[in-house]
Amino acid sequence: MDSWVDGQPADALSLKDRGLAYGDGLFETIAVRDGRPSLLDRHLARLAQGSSRLSINSDPDLIRSEVLAYAAALGSGVLKLVLTRGDGLRGYAPDPSAPARRILLGNPPAAYPAVHGERGVRLFPCVTRLSHQPLLAGLKHLNRLEQVIARSEWQDTEHAEGLMLDQADRVIEGVFSNLFLVREGVLVTADLKRCGVAGVMRAELLYQADALGIPTQITDITLEQLQSADEVFLCNSVYGVWPVHAYAALSWPVGPLTRKLQTIARALLDA
Amino acid sequence: MDSWVDGQPADALSLKDRGLAYGDGLFETIAVRDGRPSLLDRHLARLAQGSSRLSINSDPDLIRSEVLAYAAALGSGVLKLVLTRGDGLRGYAPDPSAPARRILLGNPPAAYPAVHGERGVRLFPCVTRLSHQPLLAGLKHLNRLEQVIARSEWQDTEHAEGLMLDQADRVIEGVFSNLFLVREGVLVTADLKRCGVAGVMRAELLYQADALGIPTQITDITLEQLQSADEVFLCNSVYGVWPVHAYAALSWPVGPLTRKLQTIARALLDA
Repeated sequence: MDSWVDGQPADALSLKDRGLAYGDGLFETIAVRDGRPSLLDRHLARLAQGSSRLSINSDPDLIRSEVLAYAAALGSGVLKLVLTRGDGLRGYAPDPSAPARRILLGNPPAAYPAVHGERGVRLFPCVTRLSHQPLLAGLKHLNRLEQVIARSEWQDTEHAEGLMLDQADRVIEGVFSNLFLVREGVLVTADLKRCGVAGVMRAELLYQADALGIPTQITDITLEQLQSADEVFLCNSVYGVWPVHAYAALSWPVGPLTRKLQTIARALLDA
Repeated sequence: MDSWVDGQPADALSLKDRGLAYGDGLFETIAVRDGRPSLLDRHLARLAQGSSRLSINSDPDLIRSEVLAYAAALGSGVLKLVLTRGDGLRGYAPDPSAPARRILLGNPPAAYPAVHGERGVRLFPCVTRLSHQPLLAGLKHLNRLEQVIARSEWQDTEHAEGLMLDQADRVIEGVFSNLFLVREGVLVTADLKRCGVAGVMRAELLYQADALGIPTQITDITLEQLQSADEVFLCNSVYGVWPVHAYAALSWPVGPLTRKLQTIARALLDA
């Protein structure tokens, strides 16, 4: 369907937009089923947090109403919401009073092979390392060249995702997913204070695990800890949960907690 | 004057452009005087190097001819050239065969106060630290949130620029300038292998100094070395050279090598 810019159908963007000039903005990728956006509160909360940290003026109520209207028109698919700092003059200095620009794009439902969820995926060992920038860590901002470079490291279809480490070789995330381990009954995911994107499905699964009485831990993860994990899986807010069965010479079985959380994620996305 | 997209007058960009989606592209800011772009060979060489490092397909001859035609029409001002990876589908994976998109924007001549060049500037001590990413270091790419955040640290007009350190407190550059020191007759500038933008005027001044028999050094710079420098100055390809007279509690006189290189830069920009 048509894209919207600031609530109006549009297929083009001002050349002065700071999203283009500097990647000065944020985005959310939202699964939509039968006109309803999944995990909307979490997406909007993350966007609000990012807007606050980057001092981008946004109108949460307006964004929510536009996303709901756009999703209703889209039906089923993937809605991408881009929020930029709007048009800029020359130079990096932001105009503190400039209103944010809202861009909504609609895509068909994601067409990942069902086998990714059923049997699990093999992770490509990305050489690209995530840099440390606490001021941007966790945000889903528009500066994504590291992901572009990492994703260009493999072209085969054997690898459905790539594993990204940081510059101290900590295990952080996939290129477009968050990563979880299960170790002795504890659900573990990386601390994202230095780098990484704090995914909406990651937050939801931590919440769900807590509600189920499953202990969770957000911490630094070493490659040795990854190697000795009982279960490994990926998540994002479009595909839900993919078990990880292999990474380089390592392999893991698809475990019971992975399946349990996969079922929960599927139900949330199908709701 | 009108902007151009892929050689045609246009005021808008496809919403699918990867420059917007991921900051997946490069840019050059070129001073134009009487229809002639300054330091064009250096700008185009840096763009070609960036395109090569990011595997963006670009056509150097086409870019050169468009820049020359646009500059001739602009007259005097500042030409901004943005090169993106073009439209993308969903996801980070680049299409290796996609042609780059060329965007040309024209602005009036920069209106910096003459006093910046005459008496020098005071540097704001930015708290924002540059992250280390060797895969992107040196490139003038579109992922510039660190500069946006750093530039938003001050609003007063007392500070014409800000000094950016890296996360190990090395002295790297200004927010929109490169930095030079003069120490015991040697012209020193930061090694940009971990972070920073390798400016076109920086390259030109290193070349000019070499031609004049002035020793040059590209190395890591500590705050102590900055403090004990005989001269400090900034440069970029729009304003040329600005002496630095103060930074926090530090101050420096405007020295003879600064003036000599400022005259050279001015002549290049006025040519």
